[in-house]
Amino acid sequence: MDHGGAAWRTLSRIRERRPLVHNITNYVAMDLSANVLLAVGASPAMIHAVQETAEFALAADALVVNIGTLSDGWVGGMRAAIDQAVHRGMPVVLDPVGAGATAYRTQVATRLAPFATVVRGNASEIMALAGAGGRPQGVEAAHDVTSAHGAAADVARRFEAVVAVTGGVDYVSDGEQALHISGGDALLTRVTAAGCALSALVGACLAVEAVPLAAASHACALYGVAAQQAARTAQGPGSFRVALLDALYSLDEPTVRAGVDIQRSA
Amino acid sequence: MDHGGAAWRTLSRIRERRPLVHNITNYVAMDLSANVLLAVGASPAMIHAVQETAEFALAADALVVNIGTLSDGWVGGMRAAIDQAVHRGMPVVLDPVGAGATAYRTQVATRLAPFATVVRGNASEIMALAGAGGRPQGVEAAHDVTSAHGAAADVARRFEAVVAVTGGVDYVSDGEQALHISGGDALLTRVTAAGCALSALVGACLAVEAVPLAAASHACALYGVAAQQAARTAQGPGSFRVALLDALYSLDEPTVRAGVDIQRSA
Amino acid sequence: MDHGGAAWRTLSRIRERRPLVHNITNYVAMDLSANVLLAVGASPAMIHAVQETAEFALAADALVVNIGTLSDGWVGGMRAAIDQAVHRGMPVVLDPVGAGATAYRTQVATRLAPFATVVRGNASEIMALAGAGGRPQGVEAAHDVTSAHGAAADVARRFEAVVAVTGGVDYVSDGEQALHISGGDALLTRVTAAGCALSALVGACLAVEAVPLAAASHACALYGVAAQQAARTAQGPGSFRVALLDALYSLDEPTVRAGVDIQRSA
Repeated sequence: MDHGGAAWRTLSRIRERRPLVHNITNYVAMDLSANVLLAVGASPAMIHAVQETAEFALAADALVVNIGTLSDGWVGGMRAAIDQAVHRGMPVVLDPVGAGATAYRTQVATRLAPFATVVRGNASEIMALAGAGGRPQGVEAAHDVTSAHGAAADVARRFEAVVAVTGGVDYVSDGEQALHISGGDALLTRVTAAGCALSALVGACLAVEAVPLAAASHACALYGVAAQQAARTAQGPGSFRVALLDALYSLDEPTVRAGVDIQRSA
Repeated sequence: MDHGGAAWRTLSRIRERRPLVHNITNYVAMDLSANVLLAVGASPAMIHAVQETAEFALAADALVVNIGTLSDGWVGGMRAAIDQAVHRGMPVVLDPVGAGATAYRTQVATRLAPFATVVRGNASEIMALAGAGGRPQGVEAAHDVTSAHGAAADVARRFEAVVAVTGGVDYVSDGEQALHISGGDALLTRVTAAGCALSALVGACLAVEAVPLAAASHACALYGVAAQQAARTAQGPGSFRVALLDALYSLDEPTVRAGVDIQRSA
Repeated sequence: MDHGGAAWRTLSRIRERRPLVHNITNYVAMDLSANVLLAVGASPAMIHAVQETAEFALAADALVVNIGTLSDGWVGGMRAAIDQAVHRGMPVVLDPVGAGATAYRTQVATRLAPFATVVRGNASEIMALAGAGGRPQGVEAAHDVTSAHGAAADVARRFEAVVAVTGGVDYVSDGEQALHISGGDALLTRVTAAGCALSALVGACLAVEAVPLAAASHACALYGVAAQQAARTAQGPGSFRVALLDALYSLDEPTVRAGVDIQRSA
């Protein structure tokens, strides 16, 4: 299959249709998530209050729920938006930040996961969702992607969702098929909210690509290609973050076709 | 009238007096708003709790209220600060982010507008405040500035405020007179909170320039000149945002005099 | 004493051990604090809800509490985390942002200070904690560091903490001994949350260096060296912030040894 061409088509559709991505995300990730969405041509909105999330979700093209800086006041807004999304058939991305780090966030993540179209997390978070005891180091992965392959498939089947485990080589599974996505750069681990912003990008891809396995893998691949571009000129994590946004904005067809590396899992 | 010279005088006064600008703003906009204010030489503070906004507003030189990531807990803090500002005669800027997108934010914006010295928004938001049905696409404008000229004048008269509609060519109206401000760059639409940060800059200008029509147009013009400078070296939205702060910091008299383009509306 | 060598050892340990720094900090400072911690090799987490801060603090290596955008809901989370930290003997940094600016934040800062291992603030904040009437201009210092030397020693003795007053030449006191740390750059005052992010770095240093006077002075010195590096290429506050993160990431032994300037107070 021509994955590079398919990923390029997804990016082109985002630029053309400018999907409205409703983010209920953590305080740390809002800035980078919104800027990543704007860089690729999507239209971000950050609206979390229970008074308006359901109404707002009526107009959106995708919903991204991220539990990074969780508190009870926000969970109500998340639930109202998710109910609306489910009712409308709008795709939902769940980013279970820090699942496994505390009982509270493992519970909330587990309660929201059944409504997700795609769950994107690091290895420890996905292992925690699978009940596999993947306690992260704080909110960072303490495990590598490979050790979470089984957990990803389990979570995918249990919640009937596509699961994307991101890290060195990303792994995207729908419970039956799985894809490996290479790319990215180690500097991504030195920029706060880089994973959260990828979840936002998954939302934009889902808004224009109906097959969740394709949408999630395209998001990972496009992000990875942009990160590789950014790493060429970066002097460290500060300039890398700036260059990542520039690269996402500037991605062209030859770069995407040459850079996308999606492999079917054996 | 020598608008370039007047805008330069406003900027010079900000640098000299370092006005304290009290911002009750959304989570996404806090960082860029504070950095824009610091770049021009003002002193920003972000304080929102109802326990302290009224006391804090006693010491401030301008108040900026932005409803971006609204919730009920914050509205109380906004009201207390506004009451203090009105009592003291301190200028108030209202940024009605997403007015029209949900009933909740249209209501809150409409309740706060009567207390504003300047309302700054995009075309859709100002049309929503005018009751003209300007439903935005999420929190971004779905209309161009020209289509909101009438709504701007209406809102200005109804709330006895100056209204700044920003976009391609900004439009600032006090209900009788109006000004067109050219400048800026399309990359501003690819940086989250770029409009919100302009509202913060309006606050700094109001703190040193008593005529709201002048203060609002100077803010738009100075921001536009800096954006044009930034666009010269930017490779995309990441580097543009960085360069915008550098440019605001570095603005000098010849650049401002040559770049400011404020025209009286016919 | 070989302060340069000692500061280098502290940085090397952070890179090696990747301490988990639990931050309960303000909305404005989250992004830069997390990115500063990632740049030096530490592992940041931002978790504030009372449902989980005590549990999360069980796994952390240091706790940083910052009252910048204070509200009652957060104070409970802060208290629960601090109780756990005290129970475990984990070091606690307090950043009393805006103490003196309102009665509410002076009260909260004074209530939390007895639990701090290190208090880091600007001159006005430390004077306010000492009851010396150091009303800041908003959240920025209205006093220079020298005028707060006496207050720093008072606060250190009263709360049995190390106090770091940062500004032109930083001053770190444990109530008996004191150190002066030179370095930094004036552009630090034009970047929002630059002081808050230094408090986060103090947390990382405390996690690997048991003597609080040493840990606090190393944090100030390393930050100062990185800021000097960053200022060499910066065009203004935007590029300075980016270069500061790059410089923290890239600090090597010769640069640290040559740049660290810590002097015993006479």
